This record gives sequence, structure tokens and C-alpha cells, in this order.
Amino acid sequence: MNKPDIKYLFEPESIAVIGVSQEPGKIGYKILENMIFGGYTGKIYPINPKGGTALGYDILTRIEDIEGEVDVAVIAIPARFVFDAVVSCAKKNVKMLAIISSGFSEIGNLEEEQRVVHYARAHNMRILGPNIFGHYSAKVSLNATFGPKDVRSGNVAIITQSGALGIAMIGKTAVQNIGLSSIISVGNKTDINEADLLEYLIEQEETKIILMYVEGIQEGERLVKILKEATRVKPVIVIKSGRSKRGAVAAASHTGSLAGSDQVFDAIMKQCGVLRAESIQEALEWSKFLSHTAIPKGPNGIIITNGGGVGVMATDACEKYDIKLYDDQEKLKETFESVAHGFGSTKNPVDITGEASKADYVKALKEALVDDSIHAVMALYCETAMMNSQELTEMIDEMYGQFSEKGKPITFSVFGGERTEEAIAVLHKKNVPVYRDVYDGVSCMGAIQFIRRVQSAEVVEYVSADIDTAAINKLIDSALADDRSFLLAEEGQGLLQAAQLPGPRGAVVQSVGAAVALADEIGYPVVMKVVSRDILHKSDAGGVLLDLENQGEVIDGYQTIIHSCKANVPNATIDGIEVVEQLTAGTEVILGARRDANFGTTLMFGLGGIYVEVMKDVAFRAVPLSDRDIRSMIKEIRSYPLLLGVRGEARKDIESIISAMVKVASLISNVPRITDIEINPMVVYEQGKGARAVDIRVLLSDDKKDSTS
Amino acid sequence: MNKPDIKYLFEPESIAVIGVSQEPGKIGYKILENMIFGGYTGKIYPINPKGGTALGYDILTRIEDIEGEVDVAVIAIPARFVFDAVVSCAKKNVKMLAIISSGFSEIGNLEEEQRVVHYARAHNMRILGPNIFGHYSAKVSLNATFGPKDVRSGNVAIITQSGALGIAMIGKTAVQNIGLSSIISVGNKTDINEADLLEYLIEQEETKIILMYVEGIQEGERLVKILKEATRVKPVIVIKSGRSKRGAVAAASHTGSLAGSDQVFDAIMKQCGVLRAESIQEALEWSKFLSHTAIPKGPNGIIITNGGGVGVMATDACEKYDIKLYDDQEKLKETFESVAHGFGSTKNPVDITGEASKADYVKALKEALVDDSIHAVMALYCETAMMNSQELTEMIDEMYGQFSEKGKPITFSVFGGERTEEAIAVLHKKNVPVYRDVYDGVSCMGAIQFIRRVQSAEVVEYVSADIDTAAINKLIDSALADDRSFLLAEEGQGLLQAAQLPGPRGAVVQSVGAAVALADEIGYPVVMKVVSRDILHKSDAGGVLLDLENQGEVIDGYQTIIHSCKANVPNATIDGIEVVEQLTAGTEVILGARRDANFGTTLMFGLGGIYVEVMKDVAFRAVPLSDRDIRSMIKEIRSYPLLLGVRGEARKDIESIISAMVKVASLISNVPRITDIEINPMVVYEQGKGARAVDIRVLLSDDKKDSTS
Repeated sequence: MNKPDIKYLFEPESIAVIGVSQEPGKIGYKILENMIFGGYTGKIYPINPKGGTALGYDILTRIEDIEGEVDVAVIAIPARFVFDAVVSCAKKNVKMLAIISSGFSEIGNLEEEQRVVHYARAHNMRILGPNIFGHYSAKVSLNATFGPKDVRSGNVAIITQSGALGIAMIGKTAVQNIGLSSIISVGNKTDINEADLLEYLIEQEETKIILMYVEGIQEGERLVKILKEATRVKPVIVIKSGRSKRGAVAAASHTGSLAGSDQVFDAIMKQCGVLRAESIQEALEWSKFLSHTAIPKGPNGIIITNGGGVGVMATDACEKYDIKLYDDQEKLKETFESVAHGFGSTKNPVDITGEASKADYVKALKEALVDDSIHAVMALYCETAMMNSQELTEMIDEMYGQFSEKGKPITFSVFGGERTEEAIAVLHKKNVPVYRDVYDGVSCMGAIQFIRRVQSAEVVEYVSADIDTAAINKLIDSALADDRSFLLAEEGQGLLQAAQLPGPRGAVVQSVGAAVALADEIGYPVVMKVVSRDILHKSDAGGVLLDLENQGEVIDGYQTIIHSCKANVPNATIDGIEVVEQLTAGTEVILGARRDANFGTTLMFGLGGIYVEVMKDVAFRAVPLSDRDIRSMIKEIRSYPLLLGVRGEARKDIESIISAMVKVASLISNVPRITDIEINPMVVYEQGKGARAVDIRVLLSDDKKDSTS
Repeated sequence: MNKPDIKYLFEPESIAVIGVSQEPGKIGYKILENMIFGGYTGKIYPINPKGGTALGYDILTRIEDIEGEVDVAVIAIPARFVFDAVVSCAKKNVKMLAIISSGFSEIGNLEEEQRVVHYARAHNMRILGPNIFGHYSAKVSLNATFGPKDVRSGNVAIITQSGALGIAMIGKTAVQNIGLSSIISVGNKTDINEADLLEYLIEQEETKIILMYVEGIQEGERLVKILKEATRVKPVIVIKSGRSKRGAVAAASHTGSLAGSDQVFDAIMKQCGVLRAESIQEALEWSKFLSHTAIPKGPNGIIITNGGGVGVMATDACEKYDIKLYDDQEKLKETFESVAHGFGSTKNPVDITGEASKADYVKALKEALVDDSIHAVMALYCETAMMNSQELTEMIDEMYGQFSEKGKPITFSVFGGERTEEAIAVLHKKNVPVYRDVYDGVSCMGAIQFIRRVQSAEVVEYVSADIDTAAINKLIDSALADDRSFLLAEEGQGLLQAAQLPGPRGAVVQSVGAAVALADEIGYPVVMKVVSRDILHKSDAGGVLLDLENQGEVIDGYQTIIHSCKANVPNATIDGIEVVEQLTAGTEVILGARRDANFGTTLMFGLGGIYVEVMKDVAFRAVPLSDRDIRSMIKEIRSYPLLLGVRGEARKDIESIISAMVKVASLISNVPRITDIEINPMVVYEQGKGARAVDIRVLLSDDKKDSTS
């Protein structure tokens, strides 16, 4: 099968509009109107069985009557007629179907949607939608939507799962002077989803910023992979609604339910280098700023202000948005001594006082511009009598120009009345980054610093460990044959061994002599347990002994267990005695991994017991992971200091945790039938002394192909 | 001494402006100009030793030459001349001095500031400032500032510690159509501070909302008291910069340093019923909304939308801003069935779909208006072809009018292009609460719901406990006489007793017989310790025995201790043997109290050990406290489930913790020489089994009058 390239959606040479009405106001008419008004550069074929004309075009009655090739068919007819139209499109070798029509899975009509998509796939056609408002592509001046006819062209690509919001954003971006390279309504995502579109948009030169409004994720694993690639070359901004408990779907398994899926989504987006916006407004502000501003050359930010109070607020905002404030006091003094006269300050925030005139601002900003150890500037201004509206406008405009030329980001946050508003109005029209609040400007600077860190990070290698998958698959085969979707305790121990995950050392022996030899090898104290299929409750049968401290106790213990079990379960066949290392107390951690229908494969880490259950102190990442990802997970939890050692305790064996995490990640990656792994607890000892998995819980799925839980 | 009433600042009948210049542009000239332009209703006396005329007024050369009474003297002359002017003002019995001049404590010249304030106080004059831009009071049309001459009058009072920001806010409020009842620059707060101004503003009819920009707090205890009174009658909004670590002052003692002072400030503001805004913009949006909107009659909010995506975002925002979404599905269905046709939803968010026309919105909103179980409405709109700009404007305007009339709050968040912007522009002019983002509108609704909760809360009684202050003062006298600013361990135990705080039971005995009798009474096991001034390191001397399980071990132990101590410290005088209850393990909590120069007296609570040290899981409140305050502190910590009992453990004795917190609060309230108390740990047992203070640390201050640390 040969899937057509997504580029046909963005760069079609010809489009059929199926369902063009002669009646203005109807969706089919509106789409044709928008295409013509937008100046689409390719061929347009309006289709309607009734024929007639619309907007100067003859309406063809049949798709088959089109003479040339058709790259895209926009389908805007009632759902019940869509399948037949798709069949006709297949005959014409149409490549892309943009199905505007509603009435499919979104109202429960999954069957018809499946029928359409299966047919389309079988005939090498791809589907956008159904249930969409259409799409726009600046590259070929194509507005194949029933939204506003005016779309401002530019370099921001929008992918939206919400139709209403998408249409509103076309208008909103236009009034905010944000130009679009494309806007794609993905609707029900029956075929084409965000991952497909991103693959194309990464390469598309016209697109510099990608903005996605997402409600639900599909193909999480693939999306994560593509997002990681995308963010290295272009800023990707995501808005995902359903952050709150009320909106969030209750996660199915323990691991997921710890925090709700929004925390997982948030962690994965950060890991992928995606900027997550809380609100539409924030996303648009970031898009606009990033589309006009060069990435800073380093982390050092500086605040220049004429008011102390707003300077402190900007400092607060810098902490919130993770912006490093340049802190070399001597260098700062040298640079700004001449401008922070009188009651001013050369510290960062640099306070040039309420006496600062246009010339003072220019001087201070130029000092920051030429100083190569300063990488970004946040300028603040409280209205004073020292500058009129025109001077303020000129100052900001000139300085913005010079900073832009040098590729050094600058934002202006200005506070005041009419005079300041006049300046803002003029500057907004010129796309100068001027804001009415400290937090807005600093938020944009935080976004671009985030992007700098993402794009300048070294390309990491994913870590993985050798896993004896053959042995593990044998365990799974046997469990599934047994009609179980989980591993038994012994099977779990087998899995630990196959993954070289350290559990308590031990083995099953059949004689007192072997027991003593093994205990000597393990080191005392040891635990002894009867091994018998006939004894379900080992402790009750007297089949478990703890705290065996020496050879003598092991010898006595062996006899005692045999004796007690024979007495309590007379007919039991005793297969042997298990001699196991008795674990001493340590720091308990929990490692989890999960294959999730939405997010793909994720790893979870936290301190065990209360920390995970009560304090919800856990970290998540998508698999595969780099060494840096794993280390950042460990450092991210609030209880991390416990691993470093507090109250005079020694540092814990963090390297052992990392090694175990790599193995758990490799397990879930390489064994598709495992859906959930939870090691709880793993006891971690002092540095150099290792860690031991005490208990492991493994859930299985029989479905090799659809390996989602 | 008879302090003049603050009302003279807001309602003066006459003002002298000291330092009026004949030169336009000078501050003294500007103030006179603003007063005249503003239409001040009282008498104005310009003063300057040079005499002359300005703006049609004769400038008097001496304050003493004024014929009538002078309520306020605005002083705008160099710092070095201020004292003499103040002396002259005293001769004229001026009541209020608004000292504009800079050059005092803000540049380190504390001495001169103190000289001025002491003189003023001694002569029954109060001081606003120094280092201010002046003040404005709508009541008498007084603009005694050197800021903008246009101030929009209305019902919001602003108190600002930042001059630059204050001046900018005069302009900013004007362009945002927010009217001011007053704006007061407090500058160095050498005399008049926020608490003084609040006392007046609580009563002033013209003021409906109070907005404060604060950098540092003085007289915390008094401020807390007045804020609690104020918020019961008027919304109080606070912006405090210095939220971040970089901005925050490192707190001096352990208790304070746990979280940094911003967490304490935040907790106290919540306790006082104050709305804390993060940014200027948020504070102004809240002010505007609250000044035009009636408090809702109940908590139930409802979202009405024509787009599902923005509906989900509003749901997220409702969780963020603590808004209860009305959830009676049956009632919702009944109410909205007729408007949520087709693909819509009657659930909350109520989705009236993208097909919704003006009439549909009106119908849905009217349903919400007449339904008394719905208390507040958040309406959302994504631009569609169903409404043009005029229809949108009319719909919102009409509905807002009807909701206002009924006293039911409503906000509109609208998304779209030109058409939507046109509607926003018209509606903003009419002060209709229409926003460009979901979060902005919902944030305002969250603010008004917070105010509803504050104002409708029952008036609480403060809790306190009987404390034997005589006994405690004796302990403190002795410690201070010893030149110590802390209590020794034994003194700490004495203090626990005097406050009836339960420590381990025990006493000092002088005979084996008494030891056995006491141990029998306490219950086994017990701890025995030597009591001797000559033995500093009791354990080293063999003077401490743990785990004494029965009479025999107590008898042996008594002898052993005497014997060991005699052997190890031959010349020691042994005063007796202390027999003490040996505490069993329980849940460790920490109780702290602190008298702080800024915040007044605060109580701290958290789980002990790791929870407080690593997880920083603590709660703060200002003293005095209600029973509800204390319970909310306990519930607020993340580790609260541990007190309720997790993993099959029993509930802990929370009532014992509450009782201990009341006693600690009473201790610090009633014993002014105690500055810090920390009980760490207090071991809490199962419900009904009490709690024991294991260790107490008490810091003292000799200074009875200035009881700040």
C-alpha cells in the first residue's frame, strides 16, 4: 500500500469541492467562496449532482466527470452520502479527502466512520476529519474552510481539534496581527492526526511556529517521537484542555491514577521540548513573540526599569518563568554605572529611576545591547512626565529595531494612561513586543529561553539494557495459557532475573547441606520458605522462617519447616526449601511502567509508601529515555533530598535506581505483551551497596498487535 | 496625646502647599496645578519664602501667615528644610503632613526622618510619607499629587507603596474605565501606614473596593486585625511583590525559614479574607468587576458555551479559581433541555452548539437567570456566522443588564476576529464584563465567589487557653537574669506544665522507694536520669537508663545510676533521680509560634521530621485564631491523610493537636517576652490516646515594649 504524501493536503494542485451549493450561506457555497476569495492558485472543481453554477463556476454533477487529476476532495455533504462520494473519489485516484461532514463517531456513528476510513485506506486515500471546518494553507493561498474569508498569512501553523475554537482563532490571529502558514481542523482524527501533520510541518519552510489545540491524544508513542524531532527545529506550543479533575478521565491502573493523566501529559510535553500554554491568549502571545524574535544566544536576562516596584514584580515573574537573571555584580556596575545615577541601582533589576528620559532609556538599553554577556532584555516603564507618547513610541521602536538587528530578544512592559496606550497602539501594529503587564512580557521571554534550551541541548542517546526476552516470553506464554493477565509472584521473580533486576538473592534447595552452603554464600540473616504447590498459605502451615542468623539456625530451621508442613498439611508434596537473603531496611522507592492507549509507554518513579500514596510525589516520562531524562525524573520529586541523605544519613545508591529504571523501561519497550510493571517497593541502600526489588507486579495483554491497555 | 483623625487627610477643608514654585514643571507647581484643575472644594494656601504668584494664587512666604485653619500641609521642599517647615506647621496646629520630599530613610537618612516624625507626634500631627507622590481623594475633589491631572473618580481606593507604579496606575485606571475614590502614596510609612488608612476606608461610603500594592508590612498584628474587619464589608485586593526567593528576605529563625516569608504572607492574607493578585492587570480586572457586580447569592456557577473546547477550558479554570460548578444533572436537563438541542449538552458546561443564534443565547441565559439554584453564569462565545457584531453586542449588553438588575453575576468570554473586537470595544466602554480569554472571566468570577465566602462566613470566636503566666514569667525572669535568651530543657518542661501542654509524665525523686512508687504510677517502661548541676553530660556519666520494664529494674537502675555517677564524677552532688514516662512511637508533628516584626504573631504546624524538613509541608496562620482556622491549618498540609490514618492505621488524636495548638498560640499571645516557640517533635497517638510534647525550644526577648525579634 502506498499512502499519499501529506504534502498534497498543503500544496494541492487541484481540489474538488463535493457538495457545492448554489445557495449562499450553505457550507458548500461558503467553502467555494473562501477558496476563490483567498486566491487559491490551483484548479477548483465544484461538484453537486444537481449541477448548475456557483460564483462563476460550472458545477459538475459527478466526480468522475472531472477531466484532470484531483489532489484533494473537500466533502461537505450529509454523512449518509459520504461513503458513495469516497467510492467515486477512489475511481478518480483522489489523494486526500477532507471530510467536513459531521454525523460520524462524534455522535456515536463509529461504524460508518470505520467503513469510510477502511475503504479510503484500501484505495490509497487519506482522510482529514470527518467533522472539521476545513483547512487553510498559505503556500497555495488555499482557504478550504467555511470560517472567515480573511486569513492573515504568515509563519504560524495551527492544528486544532476544536472546530469552534479554530474558526474563532482565524479571526483572533488576524486582529492580533499573527500570520498563519496553515490552520488544520483535525476533527475526529479517524486517519490523519497531529503526528502526520507534524511530519510535514517540520519540513515546511513557511512554518516557523507550530501551535496545537489538543483534547485527546492518539498514537502517543509516535507523537512523542515526532514532537521530539519537531521541537529541535521549530517551537511547538500546545494547549490541552481537561487539566482539571472534573475534566480528566479517571486513569485505569494504579500507576496512572496516582496523579491523573494531566500530570503525565505535562511531564511528557516538557520532555519533548513542547511549550504548554494554559490559555489561548498565552499561546497566541508566545506564537507572536516567537515568530518575530531570534533565539537568544545564552541564558542571561536583564531587567531595566524606571520603577522599583515593577522591577521586583519582574524578578518574581522571572522565577516563575525560569529565566536566569544575570548576576555578575561587578560587571553590572561597570556596564550600568553611567545610567543608574542618583537613587538608581546597577543591580539586576537595573533601576534608572523615575527621572529617566528617552535618552536615558536609549543609553541603558544600548549598554545592554552591546554587552555580549547579556543575552536578553526585559525593559519596564511606568509612565512619567519625562517622556511623551511620541518619545516613548520612538524609543521603543528604535531600540526594538536595533535589538532585532543584533538578534537579541527584548520585551517592553509599560504601565500608564492615555499616553502609554497611544504608544502601545502604534507599536502593536508594527509587531513590536510591548505588553501591558510585567508577567505577559516575562512569560514570552520565558518561552523563548525554554526554546533556546530545547534547541541547544545536545542530542541525547536513549539508554537501554539487555533483557532476556526469550525467557520472559516463556513466562508470559505460560501465564496467558493459564488464562491469567498477570504474573504470579514466582514468575515475577523470574522476570526480575531475566531482566537482571536485583531481587533478594536466593534459590530452592533440597537438602540441609545445600541450605547451609547457600546461606553461607548469601550471608546471614536469611529467610527460609517451603516450596510446595499443595501449600497455599505458607506461613499458616509453618512453612516460613525469618531471621535465621547462622548455620545452626538454618539446620534447625530446615527440619522445623519440613516437620511443621508435614504436620499441618499431611499430604503435601514438598518440592524443596527456598533460602533467600533477608533484606535489611533501606529507602523504599517505587518504579512503574505503563503502556497507555493515549500517551504510549511511560515510566514512573517515586519514593515508596507514604510519599507515593499520600504525598503523590512522583515523576513521569515517556519511554524511550535518555540518561538525562532518568536523572531529571529522580531529581524532580520533592523527596529527592532523602536520596541524597538528610539528617546525617549517607547518600543512597542512586546509580542502582537509574540502572533499574533503564531495565524497567527496556522491559516494557521490548516485551509488547507487558502492559504494566510496578516494582513496589525497591529497597535502596547506601551508595555502592545496591538496591533490591522486593515485590513486582506485572500485567499482561494477549493482544500483540494492539498493545494498549 | 490626641492624634488627629485620618479623615482630615481624605476630607480636608484647607490645604497648605509648602514649596509651590512659580516655575511650571517643578513638583510644587504641578501639585498646585493638579489641585486647581481637579476642582478641590476647600481652601488652598500656596507657600514659598520667595513669595510671588502662581496659577492666580498669591504665594504666602510663611506658613504662620495663613489666616484660617490648616487641615493638611503638603510639603514639597528639599529634605533638609522639611524639619523647619514641620515646626512651623506645628505652630499653625496643622493636623496632617503629606511629605512629598525624598531623601530620608530610603537613602539611609533614618535620623532626619526620625527627628521629623518625633517632632510631629509630639505636636499632634500625623505624617503621610515621606517620599510620596501625594494623594487623591474624590470626596473633596482633591488631587494633591504631582501625577496625572486627570483622575477618574469612582469607588476603588488604592494604597500604594510604590510611587512610580502608583502614578502609572492613575493613568491605567483611567484608560480602563476604573474610577477611584482615593489613591494614597504611603512612601516610607514613617507614621501613617496601611492599617491607619484602612481604618478610615472601612467606614468611608464612597469606597467599595480597596486595592493595596505592598512591598513590606509593618505592625503586622494590627494590620491583620483591621484587614479581618475590612474584608467583612469591602473586598480588599493585595498585590505584594517579592514572591520569589531572589526577592524574599531570608527569614531569621528556623520556623520562618522553612518556607520563606511569602508563604506566610499568602496564608495570612487568605486567613484575613484578602484577595491576593499576582499581577497589576489581575488586580485591576478584579477591582473593576467587583466594583460593578453584586455578590452572588450562592456558590453554584454555570458555564454556557457554543463551543465544547472553550467549555472544557472554562471547567479547568473553575477548578483553578475554586468555583463550584452546579452539578444537579436532572435539574440541569430540565432547565436547559429546550436550548441544548441537536449535538448540544445540558450538562455543565451547557453547550448550545455553534448553531446558536442571538435568540438561542438569550433563551439559555434567561433560563439561567430565572433559576434560583444557579447563582452565577460564565458565558462563552466563539465567533460564528450566526451572530454579527451588532447582535453579539446587543445580546451581551441586554443580558448583562438583566443579570445586573437581578443581582446575579455574569461574565462573557468571547473569541473571534474583527466582529468580536467591535463588540468588545463597545461593551468595554459600558463597563460590561467581557473578556478575551476564558481564564480572565473565570478569574473574576473566582474573585467574587471568594468575597462571597468571606462576607457570608459566620463571625468566629477566637480560641484561647488558660496559661499560668505567673509561673512562666518566673522562668523567663530567671533565664534573662542568667543572661540567656532561651529556656533550658528543664525550664522548657516547666513551661509545658504551666501551659498544661502534655509532656512525658515524671518527677524527681530522692529514694528508691519513691522511684518505684512513681514508676508504678506512670506505667512501664520508664526512663531514669540523674539530676545534678555538676553532671553536664548525663549519658557519658552513666546517668541515663532507658527501657526500665518493672519494679526490679527500677530498683537496680536507681543504684546503678548513683554508682556510675559517683564513679565517673566523684565530687558531684546528686540532687535526685528523675523518673519519666518512656514515650512509645507515634506520629511526630511540629508546632511553632513566632512573633515577627512584619507579620505579627504566627502559628506554624506540620508533620515532623522529613515532612517539615524535606517536603516543606507546613501551614501558617496569624494569631489569634478561631477553631476553624486551626482545623483548616491541619487539613491544609499535604500529609494530612497520615493523621486520618492510612494503610490500615488508626486515626490520630487530632483533637489533642488542636488543643496543643490553642495553648501554644495562647502562650505567645499572653507572654510578650517569648518570641519563638517550637515543639519538635510532639508525638501524637491514636484517637483518644493523646499527644506528648517531647522537646520544646523557646526564645526570649528582654524588650517588653518592642516585642519583635
